[in-house]
Amino acid sequence: MTSVRAYTATSAAGPLAPGVIERRDVGPKDVRIDIHWAGICHSDIHTVRGDWGPVPYPLTVGHEIAGVVAEVGPEVTRYRVGDRVGVGCMVDSCRECDNCRAGREQYCLAGFTDTYNGTDRDGGVTQGGYATGIVVDEHFVLRVPEAIPFEKAAPLLCAGITTYSPLRRWNAGPGKKVAVVGMGGLGHMAVKIAHAMRAEVTVLSQTLGKREDGLRFGADHYYATSDPTTFKRLANTFDLIINTVSAPLDLDAYLALLSFGGTIVSVGAPPEAVPVTLFTLFENQRSFAGSKIGGIAETQEMLDFCAEHGIAPEVEIIPAERINEAWERVLSSDVRYRFVIDTATLDAA
Amino acid sequence: MTSVRAYTATSAAGPLAPGVIERRDVGPKDVRIDIHWAGICHSDIHTVRGDWGPVPYPLTVGHEIAGVVAEVGPEVTRYRVGDRVGVGCMVDSCRECDNCRAGREQYCLAGFTDTYNGTDRDGGVTQGGYATGIVVDEHFVLRVPEAIPFEKAAPLLCAGITTYSPLRRWNAGPGKKVAVVGMGGLGHMAVKIAHAMRAEVTVLSQTLGKREDGLRFGADHYYATSDPTTFKRLANTFDLIINTVSAPLDLDAYLALLSFGGTIVSVGAPPEAVPVTLFTLFENQRSFAGSKIGGIAETQEMLDFCAEHGIAPEVEIIPAERINEAWERVLSSDVRYRFVIDTATLDAA
Repeated sequence: MTSVRAYTATSAAGPLAPGVIERRDVGPKDVRIDIHWAGICHSDIHTVRGDWGPVPYPLTVGHEIAGVVAEVGPEVTRYRVGDRVGVGCMVDSCRECDNCRAGREQYCLAGFTDTYNGTDRDGGVTQGGYATGIVVDEHFVLRVPEAIPFEKAAPLLCAGITTYSPLRRWNAGPGKKVAVVGMGGLGHMAVKIAHAMRAEVTVLSQTLGKREDGLRFGADHYYATSDPTTFKRLANTFDLIINTVSAPLDLDAYLALLSFGGTIVSVGAPPEAVPVTLFTLFENQRSFAGSKIGGIAETQEMLDFCAEHGIAPEVEIIPAERINEAWERVLSSDVRYRFVIDTATLDAA
Repeated sequence: MTSVRAYTATSAAGPLAPGVIERRDVGPKDVRIDIHWAGICHSDIHTVRGDWGPVPYPLTVGHEIAGVVAEVGPEVTRYRVGDRVGVGCMVDSCRECDNCRAGREQYCLAGFTDTYNGTDRDGGVTQGGYATGIVVDEHFVLRVPEAIPFEKAAPLLCAGITTYSPLRRWNAGPGKKVAVVGMGGLGHMAVKIAHAMRAEVTVLSQTLGKREDGLRFGADHYYATSDPTTFKRLANTFDLIINTVSAPLDLDAYLALLSFGGTIVSVGAPPEAVPVTLFTLFENQRSFAGSKIGGIAETQEMLDFCAEHGIAPEVEIIPAERINEAWERVLSSDVRYRFVIDTATLDAA
């Protein structure tokens, strides 16, 4: 076992606090990573607050991890000490089901192992990336291309792949009209990626407050959903809508914006069921779909795509001591567009 | 104007009664059709009963029409007197919107003109096919291939195309696992068509009562949805589910049967909104879609496909005097699998 420093939740309501957690010894196929950067995802907060079910405290969260390989097991073939790598939302899966064998570990039929709050091989609870180190099977380690600024790489492992996967699957590209609902951590990446795929990109945000940012990130159009004329003007327009908003949405109003054969894909979700009016779905042969992160090979493809197109998230770097404040700001949507923890500051915490 | 005999509703609750209705004079592009066969669709009953909104009685329903061309306007190019033809759910559309120009008249952005209870060119209410004749613009007239038994052709114009369109769109074919929910008028056509497309076909019906029929129509498997083990056994199985059931369904239970990238398409709909749990939709990147009849060119393609593959609906031929009884039997699901009115019996009614 190795001790690493971490910022850890000890209760649902209380602040995270600095401390020490243990990592397993490096197994034959394991990679030990010195974490340099850890992104803050809204999921971290949902999990710790118990929104998605009971939590075995103490828990260290974080599933947007960028670091450097510090040690490799004897059977590791893909990584060497010193490599720049990343870890996202998964650290293991069954490797045997149809989905795993097809490289879709995120849909592992036995359920993949979450990077934190998952059940580890030894029966313990997995602990995430708000820490100075982690040990992960090489299959779930990604290579971070040199062209991606290291401090910006971490959010790609969740916010990046979560939007890249549906954009690819539903063929965002030249001639396609893509709308992005919400301009947060996921939304701003969806805009950058869809633009790089050469789709015509429209942002649908509550207000025009982030309009300049949106256009700078590559959006061709920007509309406020608080303006009811938006929904009239854009009826039957889009081939694809990526919905990054987790709060319940008037889904029928957004479905009506889809042109023939169009799909709205939700990548954020309220826990409660969403009502869908079938008569809206019938028109234009519309679809309502869901999508969850991406497979390991697809995540590597996304990282390489971002490197090739010079895409990276907008980040605000914070020291560990400001994590609790950052969480408050995430909850009040006061972040442009992703917090990244400089984990070097954990040593001093 | 021409008078034709018809079976007509004069109120929401009362029985249909024989009488006479008027058809417009044959315009330059019109085709006058002597109706020989008229299918009974559940929509006819919903409409007359006022389930979908107020109705201007008297109303003659029927949108599954097969007959013979009796007269053509001077500008008609596609049909001649004596041709075997059909008319489905549409008799007009704007012809100018993106969808009409692409041959998707069923998604006309101005709204197509329903074969009955629609607003006709002259401002009147369109009257449907429970009648001895009809006048329709040639664009909305289909050719019935000789290989299709004439008395079985009518139901293809609604039940056939409604299931054919989503099966084509979502690529039912070799190597694809397709489930059909419900074994009524639409469901039994979905089974026959999906089988002819060489998909592996499973019927999901409330009971095993129609199992022998289902297998005879081409189903490879048949399960009762009243048996809870069905949903366990078939989890993550299907590429495509065609839901022909209009009653509210436990959608989440059916979504869970979709394998990676799978879609459930509803072609029947309860008027109320349907709750969808997003966490079920996230798994396997599933989609929930709607589909509505088909375009005119696609309907002709479907008729030619059915002729080529020797497919036709199972029908029970009835005389006009048994229409009211047939409606009661439709409401109690006592029909295998479509009633077709022999409109020759209207002359005596």
